[in-house]
Amino acid sequence: MGRKLLTEAAADGLLADSALIAHGRGEAYDYLLGEATCESARAAITQSAILMKDAKRCVISVNGNAVALAAADLIRCAAVLQCPIEINIYYRTPERMTALSSRLDRAKKEVRENSAPNGWVGDWQTAVSDVKILGINPDSRIPNLDGPRANCCSEGILNADVIFVPLEDGDRCEALMKMGKKMIVVDLNPLSRTARRATVTIVDELMRMVPILLSDLVNVEPERALKWDNQANLDNSLAVMLRRLDE
Amino acid sequence: MGRKLLTEAAADGLLADSALIAHGRGEAYDYLLGEATCESARAAITQSAILMKDAKRCVISVNGNAVALAAADLIRCAAVLQCPIEINIYYRTPERMTALSSRLDRAKKEVRENSAPNGWVGDWQTAVSDVKILGINPDSRIPNLDGPRANCCSEGILNADVIFVPLEDGDRCEALMKMGKKMIVVDLNPLSRTARRATVTIVDELMRMVPILLSDLVNVEPERALKWDNQANLDNSLAVMLRRLDE
Repeated sequence: MGRKLLTEAAADGLLADSALIAHGRGEAYDYLLGEATCESARAAITQSAILMKDAKRCVISVNGNAVALAAADLIRCAAVLQCPIEINIYYRTPERMTALSSRLDRAKKEVRENSAPNGWVGDWQTAVSDVKILGINPDSRIPNLDGPRANCCSEGILNADVIFVPLEDGDRCEALMKMGKKMIVVDLNPLSRTARRATVTIVDELMRMVPILLSDLVNVEPERALKWDNQANLDNSLAVMLRRLDE
Repeated sequence: MGRKLLTEAAADGLLADSALIAHGRGEAYDYLLGEATCESARAAITQSAILMKDAKRCVISVNGNAVALAAADLIRCAAVLQCPIEINIYYRTPERMTALSSRLDRAKKEVRENSAPNGWVGDWQTAVSDVKILGINPDSRIPNLDGPRANCCSEGILNADVIFVPLEDGDRCEALMKMGKKMIVVDLNPLSRTARRATVTIVDELMRMVPILLSDLVNVEPERALKWDNQANLDNSLAVMLRRLDE
């Protein structure tokens, strides 16, 4: 299913040339994970939900792959949190930005017409309508980062304290960490720079983990974030892969 | 470099939609290998060279990724062996077959004008000119295999006793093994069905290993093939990955 969504998204001009290659790398690591959400990923998702609910200003940053794979559920997360979604892509072209923006607008309409997540209370249509899609008109730059990928919005990434970024690049993760932001990333490779630098790393496949995150965002009691040892959590995910290879 | 060649090949219509994803999976396993030819791969390459030189009828079977990454060196191997190259792709369309065939013809012209491999003795231009590119007009089918990927040529795959296939699919590898052929495959995933079924599995990156194979084809003394335990060799490659993950 993921492969189909991505090859269609590529044909629709949503993806950079190398996006399918990046997805393939993820597939290989997911195979080592047994294509299931492991316990350490489950714990990282709950910790992420707590951080996102605790945030003063949370933002969900998306690239082409994230939109192709999980646009609807990411919009649901944003509606529950009442936070914006910012399109932020490595290889920025006006055509891709427009294609991604229309795809998200279309997904927003569909999500608004569908039912609210289980356990969520309130006016769902209004909650979804209020989700802002940012990124088309960046007014700021991330310090210590070159090129168009530094572009961002002051309403979104620039002034956020917590950023949820599926499938982030290592340089940008590092630059945003230096700005003092809490970075929550989804990365199937527990050894990647992004995975090792982030505040919380969810080593899981995006389509599989976003519904779990959504459920946690709705249902987890508001509380202070737990003490979190990201390296220990990464080691646990790596151990799952090692056990599987060993068997 | 591999990424660039493949995204260009995709733009040129040489690849199936999912070819870049398959390459990405390979990249992930190559990362675990340390992006180097390990000792077990080195041994598998030499064993392959011996089998290919010993063959009554050897053929090199190529798909889009193999052509994009290593067309010239595969043609050099075929010239040294005086064996045909057969284009054999999973998602066969006339457009892709034509694109691959012209790409190989172009590469053949370039290889003919360049110098012969080190140590090779003879008339290089004639040796290269004599390499047949098969596949456009298949006249046979591989038994026990459905769909267009069963199509093949009697001059090539059908009557070959040794087939060198970079990046083969599992079903086809199995069907060809059942025909009693010796299958030499290049697969970065030592756990794949193809890797586990083949006669000799070279767990290595194609662009890195083909020059080594070429050198072995030129320089290895003709001798009887060694006794070969492919499972033990695969285990050694897997052990390299495990060690690296463990570190």
